[in-house]
Amino acid sequence: MKRSEVQNAQQRALKFLEKAGIVLNKRERSNIEVADFGLNDLENIGLELVVYENNDRYCAKELILFPGQTCPEHRHPPLSADNPGKMETFRCRWGKAYLYVEGVPTAAPKARVADTYKEYLTVWHEIPLNPGDQYTISADTLHWFQAGPEGAIVSEFSSTSDDTSDIFTDPRIKRIPEIEENEER
Amino acid sequence: MKRSEVQNAQQRALKFLEKAGIVLNKRERSNIEVADFGLNDLENIGLELVVYENNDRYCAKELILFPGQTCPEHRHPPLSADNPGKMETFRCRWGKAYLYVEGVPTAAPKARVADTYKEYLTVWHEIPLNPGDQYTISADTLHWFQAGPEGAIVSEFSSTSDDTSDIFTDPRIKRIPEIEENEER
Repeated sequence: MKRSEVQNAQQRALKFLEKAGIVLNKRERSNIEVADFGLNDLENIGLELVVYENNDRYCAKELILFPGQTCPEHRHPPLSADNPGKMETFRCRWGKAYLYVEGVPTAAPKARVADTYKEYLTVWHEIPLNPGDQYTISADTLHWFQAGPEGAIVSEFSSTSDDTSDIFTDPRIKRIPEIEENEER
Repeated sequence: MKRSEVQNAQQRALKFLEKAGIVLNKRERSNIEVADFGLNDLENIGLELVVYENNDRYCAKELILFPGQTCPEHRHPPLSADNPGKMETFRCRWGKAYLYVEGVPTAAPKARVADTYKEYLTVWHEIPLNPGDQYTISADTLHWFQAGPEGAIVSEFSSTSDDTSDIFTDPRIKRIPEIEENEER
């Protein structure tokens, strides 16, 4: 991603947070994380995040999804004998999201996905998340989610977060973004 | 507390949540927890809670405080060799709260407290919490908090919650409320 694209996404995420009535402090406003998962197609595959707290016991984040934006399929694997992997609760605060988890595939799922991504979306049990709805995902369980046509704000409550250990189904994905500092090149 | 007092407090808490733009689902709306800490003086000493999730790894709640309402001083003690006690992050979402923790006492603290409670408030290091501000409290650390004149909504992110083990400074306090089912008595 180009630096300007990151900044545009940060500004856009701020507008969604404002619509949802969620207040960030100054440090948070200038540090919204923009993840394109290395696919350089942020409008379709991406996620914007505010990490409120991440310590060795728990984590809390706000996830911002633009309209139709998809966080691609992944799982949080066991990390040690004491840590079976990240467990997380998604709570929709604003807009609408469709969460997909392991289980009986939903007959007519609402998510719209381009063919180039479809083969790496293998779980299709749909959990619709409207404001006030929430769903808890066990450790080491495949999941992905997509915002509805308005976008979505989802609070994530979880055990400790370690994004670098996430396992994505699509082998093209890099979770930690690469930003081109110099746009002249 | 009388059942009617609990119901009134629940309705009032819902109005504060609405003002803050926080949406609850139907089950949550009818299950708002009202804690008077056994002191039967809810206006001054009390707390309203919505528990979103509490599992063996993490917990997330919304705390609602009426104007000037105080959550009395307590700590979360160690529970086992593996559990040093509950660690928690308070994030102000709406209104204003004053959090008091161990440390250098603040010269002119903003909280107003009746004499009957004052002797059981022993820590006076003030952390003002405006919307977007947050503060993380280590396990086994004394703390208490009071809402400003508008009230406050505070998100709590934490390790697993076990209210029954909380240790309050005021020996009169009972954390688990006693509700009189029959108001005729």
